[in-house]
Amino acid sequence: MAEAEKQIEFWFDFSSPYGYFASAHIDEIGRRHGRHVLWRPCLLGVAFKKTGVPLPITQPLKGDYFRRDWDRMARAEGRPYRFPDKFPIAALAPSRMFYATDAKDHDAAVRFARRCFAAYYEEGRDISGPETAASCGVDVGLDREQLLAANEAPAIKDLLKARTDEALAKGVFGSPFFLVDQEPFWGSDRLDMLDRWLERSGW
Amino acid sequence: MAEAEKQIEFWFDFSSPYGYFASAHIDEIGRRHGRHVLWRPCLLGVAFKKTGVPLPITQPLKGDYFRRDWDRMARAEGRPYRFPDKFPIAALAPSRMFYATDAKDHDAAVRFARRCFAAYYEEGRDISGPETAASCGVDVGLDREQLLAANEAPAIKDLLKARTDEALAKGVFGSPFFLVDQEPFWGSDRLDMLDRWLERSGW
Repeated sequence: MAEAEKQIEFWFDFSSPYGYFASAHIDEIGRRHGRHVLWRPCLLGVAFKKTGVPLPITQPLKGDYFRRDWDRMARAEGRPYRFPDKFPIAALAPSRMFYATDAKDHDAAVRFARRCFAAYYEEGRDISGPETAASCGVDVGLDREQLLAANEAPAIKDLLKARTDEALAKGVFGSPFFLVDQEPFWGSDRLDMLDRWLERSGW
Repeated sequence: MAEAEKQIEFWFDFSSPYGYFASAHIDEIGRRHGRHVLWRPCLLGVAFKKTGVPLPITQPLKGDYFRRDWDRMARAEGRPYRFPDKFPIAALAPSRMFYATDAKDHDAAVRFARRCFAAYYEEGRDISGPETAASCGVDVGLDREQLLAANEAPAIKDLLKARTDEALAKGVFGSPFFLVDQEPFWGSDRLDMLDRWLERSGW
């Protein structure tokens, strides 16, 4: 699979701030190493249920740490982050709209995903609402009605389910999660390690 | 509290490979920034119970990832790591012996902790056994009988409980966990961030 070997799979949940932070860096890492970055949103609620773990943000000590850590990462990177009013969300609508777009044009789907991340983590808008998600699409040149239709289309619903199943089958249990030639890297704080792995072709 | 401001608190569980990996770097980071590193073993089983989370190693997808990640980190750092035959362990004996030693000499306690880490993660010996833990003490010049007595001493048992309570009160929920002037850093993959935080005095 020479094609797959040239990729970095970037799995994330729109409801994951760490996914948002990683999204700012992963394409540059891909460029540096001649790798196409395949963006792959999925619904991690399913993964958390599978691993028997409560949502991190709801865990007493860890939840507090994460909120503080996200603010700190934003300051460290100079990014316009704010904790969304509604959190977490079930990111069905933006994930479905992503895959409907991705079926025709991956780059357009990535632009849509970036716009959704910004709307949610920079502007505090609830992108789980189909209208809000569709308006993010309009902002990057997509068609509102097509996106809203995609959000209700059985084939697209099934595609998102299939992608989430694929993620679990590949061992994805958190967001962001990267796969490089089947080598897994979990967490935005592993981007450096991923970068060095690609540099040295592993250890 | 000028004294506390000059420290890095290094919380860990002897049963945490990530604690072992971090132990190889934290003193150097402390030296670089003129900070005393205060080693603080605790029993994270208590913390996991408190956060309602199953032990990471027992989680279906995460457990597999961690095992692979530990091997990979060892290769990346050229460290003589092997996954222990018995894992995880309840590290009561080495933690108690640590605090009994620490009450008189922190540096000696750190040497003991390093020896325990090596015995467990490099030689595969079960350091939860009091005899094995005590023999690690002997290797670094401590007295076997005193260590074995400490393992049974109510005051030392209470001290370990108090340290674990202190960890939870300070928000520690994983290993390793670092506190710098009350700023928390979780995970061996945050050592770079901790280093930069000390370099810049925060963000």
